[in-house]
Formats: sequence, C-alpha cells, structure tokens
Amino acid sequence: MERFSSISMAVVRRLPKYHRYLGEIGKRGINRVSSQELSKITGFTASQIRQDLNCFGGFGQQGYGYNVDDLYKEIGNILGLNKIYKTVVVGAGNLGQAIVNYSFFEKSGFVTKGIFDTNPKIIGLSIKEIKVYDVEKLEDFVRENAIDIGIICTPRGQCQKVAEILSNGGIKAIWNFAPSDIKVPDEVLVENVHLSESLFTLSYLLNEKEELEKSRKF
Amino acid sequence: MERFSSISMAVVRRLPKYHRYLGEIGKRGINRVSSQELSKITGFTASQIRQDLNCFGGFGQQGYGYNVDDLYKEIGNILGLNKIYKTVVVGAGNLGQAIVNYSFFEKSGFVTKGIFDTNPKIIGLSIKEIKVYDVEKLEDFVRENAIDIGIICTPRGQCQKVAEILSNGGIKAIWNFAPSDIKVPDEVLVENVHLSESLFTLSYLLNEKEELEKSRKF
Repeated sequence: MERFSSISMAVVRRLPKYHRYLGEIGKRGINRVSSQELSKITGFTASQIRQDLNCFGGFGQQGYGYNVDDLYKEIGNILGLNKIYKTVVVGAGNLGQAIVNYSFFEKSGFVTKGIFDTNPKIIGLSIKEIKVYDVEKLEDFVRENAIDIGIICTPRGQCQKVAEILSNGGIKAIWNFAPSDIKVPDEVLVENVHLSESLFTLSYLLNEKEELEKSRKF
Repeated sequence: MERFSSISMAVVRRLPKYHRYLGEIGKRGINRVSSQELSKITGFTASQIRQDLNCFGGFGQQGYGYNVDDLYKEIGNILGLNKIYKTVVVGAGNLGQAIVNYSFFEKSGFVTKGIFDTNPKIIGLSIKEIKVYDVEKLEDFVRENAIDIGIICTPRGQCQKVAEILSNGGIKAIWNFAPSDIKVPDEVLVENVHLSESLFTLSYLLNEKEELEKSRKF
C-alpha cells in the first residue's frame, strides 16, 4: 500500500513500544517520566524519543518530563486504540485459536466477529462463544458486517486465496500470520508477522556470542 | 544481555528478511540479483543493502550483483542456520502447540526436545511425537539435554518464573511469547515477540488512512 503520511514507518513501529512501556510503568504507580528515564527503560536514546513524540506535537514539558498516564493515553489515541475494530480470524488451527483466546486484543478494542475454516469437523462449533463458519461465507460476512481487519492464520498455501476473498469483501486491513507475502489491492493495508525472523535473530545472537567466546580463548 | 559485536541490531534484524526474500526468488528460479533489484523486493534502499552485506564481507561483485543461492546460503550461515538447536516449548496451550506443529522451524534446524506444562490432563501426552512433561522436570531436563533455546508460551503471570527455571538449568537463549518482559542473567539471550506491537502498528495505519481520507473531503 501507498502511504501519504510524512511519519516514517520506523517512528510508527516505535509507538507501540512506548505505549507498552508507559502502560507498565503506569501500573507500577509512576506518574512522571523524563525522556532520559524512558531511554533507560526502552533502550532508545532520549533524543530519539523526544524527536519521535515531537512528530505528534510533543506532549512533554521542559523540566517536568512527561505525565505517564497522559502520554499513555495520547499514544493510545494515535495508535487508534480508542476505537473498536471488527475482526475475523481465518484458519481455526492452533494459531487461530490462540489469537481468538488472547483476551488482551479484545481489551484493546479488537473484537472477533467470526472465525472461518474449511474443516467440516470444526465448522459450526464455537470458540469463546464465537461461531466457526465455512470459509465459503467469508466474503459476504466481511461485506455485511463491515469487518475492519482480517487475520490470516491459514497454512502458507491458502493465504493468497484468503487475502483475495477478504479484499473482495471490502476488508480494510489484513494481519497475516501465514509465512508468505500476500498481494492485495493498494487500498488494503497489510501487516505480516514473520515469526521466523524473530527466531533467526535469536540464532544469530547465539552464534555471534559463541564465536566471540571461542575467539577469546585464543 | 550485553553484546560485544560492532554489528548493530538494526542490521541483524534485516538479515532474516534478506534470507527470506532470497529464498523466495531462488525458488522462482532466479539465480542472480543486483542490490537495486533486491531493493525493489525488500523495500530497503540499494545502498543500505550493500552496506549491510559489507558488514559481513560483501559477497557481491561489481557489474554482476549477487548470486542468489550463494548469498542465501551465506546469510543462512551468518544467522547460524547451518547448525542444529535443541529447544523446549514451555506452555502447551494453543500457541505452544502452534509452535511445535510449525514444521518450518524444525526444517530450519530448531528441534523441539520436550514440551512442558502444569496441566495434569496434558502431561504425559505427546504432540507430534514429542512428550509433554511436568514443568517440575524442566530445570533438570534443560541441564541434562543441554537445551539451547527455551520457548516461553505461558500466560503472562508465569513467564518470569519459567525464565528463572530455564536460566537455572543453563539455557543459552529464550524466545518469549508471553506479553511481558522477563529478567534473566546477563549471559542468557532473550528475544521477545510482542504480537500486540504488530497489531497496533496496523491500527495506526488504518487510522492514519482514515484521517487522511477525511481531510481530503474538505
């Protein structure tokens, strides 16, 4: 998709992190934080944090820092977490069920309206009181219920077809867990989750550490 | 954890992406690629790609570009994918089962040696011929089997305790899916997967788009 905003994706991707850390320190009863303190918690530099937040108008006060609750709410609003999103989960396997059962998403405003699968043994059942429908009904369901986000939890081979059905139904955004990139019309937003990238980063670090330890022995 | 390498985490996190894209174009039968072509596919600039690969010695040839298979293998080696890692999955709920069942990880060298849970109804069963053990046995199992990576798929409340058990058993790295940061000794590597960050990035983009569309109507 094409974006017309001047905010870079690097900044956008840091916002959920700020939001999470602010939520955590808020819960610990801390109500005021400086960009230096935020830097220690988040690992980003204080100047990067100030720069990022300035993209959206600042929020801080010189000599005072940031009010934790206010900043948490402001970033939540910027992330659109003050709204409700209607979602469908496609693929009722382990991963799909894990997503449906993860109550934090629902608490954050992402409400599963339907689950879709091709397996006749699962169709008609309910997960957390949400019905599992035949994927044949997906396009109409998306259109009739004005679903915002389609969550693809199918195997790799089915994800492109599902993405097309969702797009034909007028979906606005797709959260794709299938380990393959999908092609959709420009107006559909896509966020891919590539779990292997995270795992391979870990194996890189593991190897780097072992190589460094080996080289120090000589 | 503290790193002593000069390679920045930003570069490290791009390597699995290069690896994935190279694997995809290799499968399509393309055996030669320029940094400009890689740029079109990956979305990173050609100069960034060249710079990143130069951190590890280059691999490209002026006027020729990169050999796709060679570069795929080289990056795979840098990521440590030429080795075998012994893993345990802690938490045999939907997410834990999804991870165990995801054959791509095993194909990439990450072999699940044991699954651990606290639920007596699950303990003793097998998932994909891998036995589910009582979490009581986790520390000894990690030590005796020289497990490399512990994958935490427990609810938020249990993740810190599990991280400590894994660390006491001598685990080298933890892949944490629980939505909370964990504290471990310096020598244990940690990679957190925060699915909410990916979802909130999507809601940000959805809102940004809707705001831009609204502002264009006036």
